[in-house]
Amino acid sequence: MALKIYLAGPDVFLPEARRVGRQKQHICREFGFEGLFPLDNNNEAVADAAKIFRANCSLMLQADIGLFNLTPFRGPSADAGTVFELGFLFARAKPVYGYTGAVKSYRERVAAAGGLHVDHPSDRDGYAIENFGLGDNLMIARAIEDSGGVITAVEETPGEESEYLAAFQAFKACLKVISERINTTDVRTA
Amino acid sequence: MALKIYLAGPDVFLPEARRVGRQKQHICREFGFEGLFPLDNNNEAVADAAKIFRANCSLMLQADIGLFNLTPFRGPSADAGTVFELGFLFARAKPVYGYTGAVKSYRERVAAAGGLHVDHPSDRDGYAIENFGLGDNLMIARAIEDSGGVITAVEETPGEESEYLAAFQAFKACLKVISERINTTDVRTA
Repeated sequence: MALKIYLAGPDVFLPEARRVGRQKQHICREFGFEGLFPLDNNNEAVADAAKIFRANCSLMLQADIGLFNLTPFRGPSADAGTVFELGFLFARAKPVYGYTGAVKSYRERVAAAGGLHVDHPSDRDGYAIENFGLGDNLMIARAIEDSGGVITAVEETPGEESEYLAAFQAFKACLKVISERINTTDVRTA
Repeated sequence: MALKIYLAGPDVFLPEARRVGRQKQHICREFGFEGLFPLDNNNEAVADAAKIFRANCSLMLQADIGLFNLTPFRGPSADAGTVFELGFLFARAKPVYGYTGAVKSYRERVAAAGGLHVDHPSDRDGYAIENFGLGDNLMIARAIEDSGGVITAVEETPGEESEYLAAFQAFKACLKVISERINTTDVRTA
């Protein structure tokens, strides 16, 4: 039976969310995995926050692995819903992996947004900027590291089949890592 | 024994983080609770992301309740580390509560940031904006609701003992709700 990978990310907010989901699921199959996409459980008619929440939680509980699109969304950090799900699956002791279309560090992005030098200790509001050389808040990066996962970062180049937020290149790179690890350690689901 | 409340939030990035933490712990004691503040486990010398991560996880596991400062941080959503911890404690089946200094809906904030009318279906990048009348991403709001918690929102007014990001007014309002519920249902820790 193919390992089930929960595909978390802000992809659900793309105008072409369903197509992007199907494309990512197709790529998962090429690596021998089954991709679970949040919109699988929702039809177009569902506009009920409680139902969507429970459907996502139920889908996460079916997954063997969590794969998180950490591309910054509406700010220097990953999408809030995605990060919630990372905390959820980490607490459920699932291996979690991440990928992003942004290659710069969190500090670099926050400083740039405030027009500050990268070495400035705080942002324009006076709030400290984390200085661990990580791609996002340390809870995100460390959870993935501690679970045995990795984060792949590949700058997205605009093209026929790529969209910045979907981060297809980093997505494929991460699936390759997961696939190699699975084949090396011969971990299989029952 | 006093109920232990984990005090999650971007407060740790304030210039006066430790003072704000002590102040919130003091307020907790006034309500009969023990507040666990993330910086409790770190001394000034700790600048190791892995250690901070594990200290925070360990502190969360000691808590009976999670209380989350959801005031928007570097964008329209709550701080990423805070949201990670919300997912973590929700998955561990702890009651989770939230508070925020922002009273507008998530949709209103995203539209305003893009200079768009509140009814516009997508943000300036073309990404869909959630339309559930919630204060943030639905995963955040629904997790709190499903766990039996509430989110209190009180616009912060600048003053001697208040700081916008710390959202002291909403914090106290939420502790009051927790306190009333505890006293009504007579839930106690062993």
